[in-house]
Amino acid sequence: MKTYLDCYPCFMKQSLSAARRAGASEELQQEILLNVMDELQSLPLSITPPEMAFKIHKSVRQKTHNSDPYKQAKDQATQEALTLYPELKNKLGTASDPLEIAVRIAIAGNIIDLGVNDSYDIKANLNRVLTQSFAISDLPALRKQLEECSSILYLADNAGETVFDRILIEQFNKPVTYVVKAGSIINDATHEDAVAAGIDQVAEIIDNGSQAPGTLFEQCSESFLQRFQQAELIIAKGQANYESLSERPAPIFFLLQAKCNVIARDLGIKETDIVLKQQLKE
Amino acid sequence: MKTYLDCYPCFMKQSLSAARRAGASEELQQEILLNVMDELQSLPLSITPPEMAFKIHKSVRQKTHNSDPYKQAKDQATQEALTLYPELKNKLGTASDPLEIAVRIAIAGNIIDLGVNDSYDIKANLNRVLTQSFAISDLPALRKQLEECSSILYLADNAGETVFDRILIEQFNKPVTYVVKAGSIINDATHEDAVAAGIDQVAEIIDNGSQAPGTLFEQCSESFLQRFQQAELIIAKGQANYESLSERPAPIFFLLQAKCNVIARDLGIKETDIVLKQQLKE
Repeated sequence: MKTYLDCYPCFMKQSLSAARRAGASEELQQEILLNVMDELQSLPLSITPPEMAFKIHKSVRQKTHNSDPYKQAKDQATQEALTLYPELKNKLGTASDPLEIAVRIAIAGNIIDLGVNDSYDIKANLNRVLTQSFAISDLPALRKQLEECSSILYLADNAGETVFDRILIEQFNKPVTYVVKAGSIINDATHEDAVAAGIDQVAEIIDNGSQAPGTLFEQCSESFLQRFQQAELIIAKGQANYESLSERPAPIFFLLQAKCNVIARDLGIKETDIVLKQQLKE
Repeated sequence: MKTYLDCYPCFMKQSLSAARRAGASEELQQEILLNVMDELQSLPLSITPPEMAFKIHKSVRQKTHNSDPYKQAKDQATQEALTLYPELKNKLGTASDPLEIAVRIAIAGNIIDLGVNDSYDIKANLNRVLTQSFAISDLPALRKQLEECSSILYLADNAGETVFDRILIEQFNKPVTYVVKAGSIINDATHEDAVAAGIDQVAEIIDNGSQAPGTLFEQCSESFLQRFQQAELIIAKGQANYESLSERPAPIFFLLQAKCNVIARDLGIKETDIVLKQQLKE
């Protein structure tokens, strides 16, 4: 997905938020915003939003000398999600279609995205996502693929969301490889964040070799790319994975909430809509 | 009030919205945004948000060759507000404190602000503002001043909001001068917009000589400035009037909704809070 003009103000908001989280002074915050405007003026709209975000957040980290401005927010999100885990597992126990509920739970967790908004209400969002209609739902196709595949490659999104992913993974009853980022970028999950969510108990954790949001092939490691190309079934969580993979033929199911009007427009849906969308191999 | 760093992304959103309303092509929209970034990089934060908005929207109008991008939105807002007028007048007829209800109605109308957000729900907002507590309320002082003054200077904000202002003006039973902008700026009311709302039936309409949001003294006409300096009681509607007059000693009552976190922070209140705030002469 290309970058839209609406992404410009959003990147400005994101950088300001990152700069503040990194403890930057007012002067440094302003310097960072002026620099982001230089970057936005020099980058072509043809690149994807995750590519832009990669460059912008890298420069914020460098200017603030803070390698992980979202560390505290990530830890808090994981802790909050873990307190919800027992209750959510109970819900599955009584569900008539546990897979659908687990998919909804994993999508609900996708609200924990500090790239799009600066805060979220996970409980209110859970209540909504557990009952609202899917704007796009390829659940029958996912069910079929899950039966046929021998393993699953799961592209993670944010820390905290990881706990909700775990619930879905526990539903699969198939070997899962959980792919995190190789370094800190916004509140995306790293190896450490995945372990804190207990993912190591239910899946193999690997990183994609990249410190960008989503999955930017040109930054990913050879070993990850090999796994991707050989995967029978890929679960891709969140907006950035959609933005970076929407034009790549592969056996992907995108699970996300449309958290801004740009992605909503691209998918032909409305903001706050939820999506389980199949992408084909060719 | 000075401009905050949070205003930068907001100005970008505003210019994109204005460019689209003016019918600009994708290419021109991008050119406009790149140009706005140049402007933001060159303007000092010490100037007020209305001063920034003045420069930015002027350049959008010039680049799009459209002198009034918000014309259609303004006409629609006025028409929608006029359909609500009879019902709102009925509310006043049965109110135990008609002045308070009229103040609330005028503040509710302030949601019609296309500078901050790109859309609004006037009915939902009316229901909220008619019952929510004031974050700041100097109603007793306003009541006293209204009794003592011989006339009122009323600084308008947006088209459509004008209809709600009319309801408050009809409650005053004092001569009112209604001050609009001398030219189109965002969806601020001009003479034509005020007449469409029926303000000419309840007040004298003048303009302030300026085509900026709020009240920028250095742009205002001598005749308006004289009226301002001699005014016994000034009603100033909306964020931009607060932003441009909050540090000017004058017998002002600010009536507004806090529609963004910048003004909320400046006033020490929360977003969506409503305010009736007295400013003193000295």
